[in-house]
Amino acid sequence: MKKAIVIGAGASGLKAAYDLNQNGNFEVTVLEAESRVGGRIKTDHKSSAIGNHYDLGGAWFHDSLNNPVLDLGMELGVISIEKGTAYYDDKDRLYFGSEGHIDVVNNRANRVVEEMFQFIGGVFQTAPDTPDTSVKQMVDEYFKRYPHRHTEEQRQLARRLARYLELWSGVSWDRMSAKSASLELEGRNIYNVHGYDFLVNHLSKPLEGKIRTGEKVIAIDRSKSPVVVTTEKSTYEADYVVVTLPLGALRQLPEQGGVEWSPALPKALQASIDGVHMGALGKVVLEFDQAFWDVNQDQFVILPDENLAKETGKLTGLPPPFTYGTVIVNYAAAGKKLNNNPALVCLTQSPFTEWIESHPDQAWDYFGPEVEKLAVDKVKFTKPTNIIVTNWTQNPHFNGAYAAPYVGEDMVPLIAQLSGEHEGMGLGPAIEFAGEHTIFQATGTIQAAYLSGERAAKHIIDHSGHSN
Amino acid sequence: MKKAIVIGAGASGLKAAYDLNQNGNFEVTVLEAESRVGGRIKTDHKSSAIGNHYDLGGAWFHDSLNNPVLDLGMELGVISIEKGTAYYDDKDRLYFGSEGHIDVVNNRANRVVEEMFQFIGGVFQTAPDTPDTSVKQMVDEYFKRYPHRHTEEQRQLARRLARYLELWSGVSWDRMSAKSASLELEGRNIYNVHGYDFLVNHLSKPLEGKIRTGEKVIAIDRSKSPVVVTTEKSTYEADYVVVTLPLGALRQLPEQGGVEWSPALPKALQASIDGVHMGALGKVVLEFDQAFWDVNQDQFVILPDENLAKETGKLTGLPPPFTYGTVIVNYAAAGKKLNNNPALVCLTQSPFTEWIESHPDQAWDYFGPEVEKLAVDKVKFTKPTNIIVTNWTQNPHFNGAYAAPYVGEDMVPLIAQLSGEHEGMGLGPAIEFAGEHTIFQATGTIQAAYLSGERAAKHIIDHSGHSN
Repeated sequence: MKKAIVIGAGASGLKAAYDLNQNGNFEVTVLEAESRVGGRIKTDHKSSAIGNHYDLGGAWFHDSLNNPVLDLGMELGVISIEKGTAYYDDKDRLYFGSEGHIDVVNNRANRVVEEMFQFIGGVFQTAPDTPDTSVKQMVDEYFKRYPHRHTEEQRQLARRLARYLELWSGVSWDRMSAKSASLELEGRNIYNVHGYDFLVNHLSKPLEGKIRTGEKVIAIDRSKSPVVVTTEKSTYEADYVVVTLPLGALRQLPEQGGVEWSPALPKALQASIDGVHMGALGKVVLEFDQAFWDVNQDQFVILPDENLAKETGKLTGLPPPFTYGTVIVNYAAAGKKLNNNPALVCLTQSPFTEWIESHPDQAWDYFGPEVEKLAVDKVKFTKPTNIIVTNWTQNPHFNGAYAAPYVGEDMVPLIAQLSGEHEGMGLGPAIEFAGEHTIFQATGTIQAAYLSGERAAKHIIDHSGHSN
Repeated sequence: MKKAIVIGAGASGLKAAYDLNQNGNFEVTVLEAESRVGGRIKTDHKSSAIGNHYDLGGAWFHDSLNNPVLDLGMELGVISIEKGTAYYDDKDRLYFGSEGHIDVVNNRANRVVEEMFQFIGGVFQTAPDTPDTSVKQMVDEYFKRYPHRHTEEQRQLARRLARYLELWSGVSWDRMSAKSASLELEGRNIYNVHGYDFLVNHLSKPLEGKIRTGEKVIAIDRSKSPVVVTTEKSTYEADYVVVTLPLGALRQLPEQGGVEWSPALPKALQASIDGVHMGALGKVVLEFDQAFWDVNQDQFVILPDENLAKETGKLTGLPPPFTYGTVIVNYAAAGKKLNNNPALVCLTQSPFTEWIESHPDQAWDYFGPEVEKLAVDKVKFTKPTNIIVTNWTQNPHFNGAYAAPYVGEDMVPLIAQLSGEHEGMGLGPAIEFAGEHTIFQATGTIQAAYLSGERAAKHIIDHSGHSN
């Protein structure tokens, strides 16, 4: 039996451990710093005051035409569109601003934004050597390159609409890499109403007794064979180590609570790790006694007021409402078939996420005036009975949501080195990396993590000569 | 002075002649079989009974972020969004069927169709060796590959909506190549309200006296130097010949009225020409005393009744209304700033185009019941006061609208050979080809023709040593 240590019990770590365990030739131990398993899968059944549950981490099936986690959920009978445990929440969105409901159809602002994103993608496709700029700069460039084609209303609206992208990456548009902004995902987005805990449960079931939570890894000595992994509590030896630390943890220096590598990581690898930021997508769940919004809508989008936009940098106080854009998921629609109770799930981006996650008691001060705009029946509009705020940016085991390139940053060298698929890169056969930030397919998603875990296990099984 | 003959006075031929003429070292003659210049640009100022004019050939600016003809029109001051001589007619469409107005938003059928097209594009992108099938088969494949994801209503509606593609290529979905169906165009579509005659006028102005209309070319003897070009009226010698015959004319045998080549075209080239069909996009213009439809809409789409669909093969009689899908352009909106009078422009596809173009008097029998569905004010609904029907499929100089690959057909070898850009292909430096079917950029459009004419002229200028 070979010893395998998997660092991290998220989707990638659990999948790697699951596959290694199933192979039968490995003694698998999963070390998890948190007191719970799941990593950035976090299906919260406890915080709701109205009997709902929420995925506070990944919540959608993206790339749904090529999504092995979706396929698995369907095979297991857990995920079903027909039963309502999964829901296509992609009805044409309704838009609101501080001025109230905003029509984007009659003035074709919806078309302008589509074209704008085609333009941004096209620039880098046609000339891949074009220097990276921010999405904001690229939007300005679009209007500069094509004057006399838009009404003033379209120009203003489209600029506000473009910031919808912020709620994908969790990064404000003035810092977001335009080069990395185009998403190549196939298929509609599906809200996982059941909750992603189905995946955690499925993968961790055969690993009973092999997962040690509350075991934070502080050092990895890869100069020795077997490798020595030191946690705050103990020391482990392993023939193989799968490192699934989030990029936000990998980026930390040992004195900040990061892992001490012996010897240090190769400079090129360290530079690639330091070269990509974590995005900061956050969520604020607002629970109500009754719905005052149009329950037949899937998502509402709050457009930022352009004149308020102070996008960059750390906030020093709660910004006024409508400073940032917000995507608001109507949980009453997503969970309709399961009789979910009325709640709105607001998505936030950096730098606002950092502020609100560290000041969760201020959530209603910010979102109240935004959410009030959604009220169909003003009389029913009330304060929420309960508020749940994520804390991904405040938790040093994550330091954010998922990898999200800032201007000039590039996932390609990072993934190339961490994927373990290129000779002479990475750390040799004893150490594999996995996680959403280590794979080109659907980077940043749960299935990316899952597939990278599968890949790490396969590399180890192949190397050890135990493949079938 | 070198002698250059340009065969065809459409966008490609006129651009080639314009550039050769401007170079100053060529004696240019354009031979045009029709009695008019323009080719598949045909801005009709005469047929309207209500003072409108219509582009019965190409009418939109496609690929509008990279469109040199649009840029030219703007530079000339002729084409202007602000003045209304060009119009983005891309507001969310309204859909109708024999059952009346069809909502595609609330049931997300719009999203299903988007995903379906992503799927079709993805299949051939992921595995380029996948054998070609029809769009219809690929739609079936999509639903087969992803069961349990759609409601029965979505399945039925999305199948009908998918046939919207027919009004791009002019080919019914059961014959349309799925592999060639994905359009890689950037930018919103712009309706050319002014009319494409601006381009014809601009290019033909300096060619006064050099264009001979009614001169149909019947033979090209390329065994001689100079090349001998024979028309029904005369014989010409030329150092260079630019052949811009539409694919539908190139495909014709001499006994059918096609050109007799001496020696015959190389077999590979002939096979490529025979290997791609002409699509048959037709137009039926309906003029009215007053508008009975919602004049704030840009386009209406009539969805076919699935149970009526007998797509393939030549028709033997007028099919019932709703057998095919129809895109109906609200000319009152497109021409609003220019005070256009009420008219609807219906787009048709093969095999219906062939029927209606040869039986134009039956147009209202077919479109009447379809157009009646659009009536907001039923009292105002009346017969049209005037009907204009195109005849592209009936005119042997065109035999259709533009190249449109059927299942298993491929533009790539055709374009590779006709583009004159690959050594050992084509017919040597004395004979250049041009036209929408000879170029990869925006194939099938007016700017494709324009760019191919520019290319042909450049090749000749370079070869003759007269480049600057």
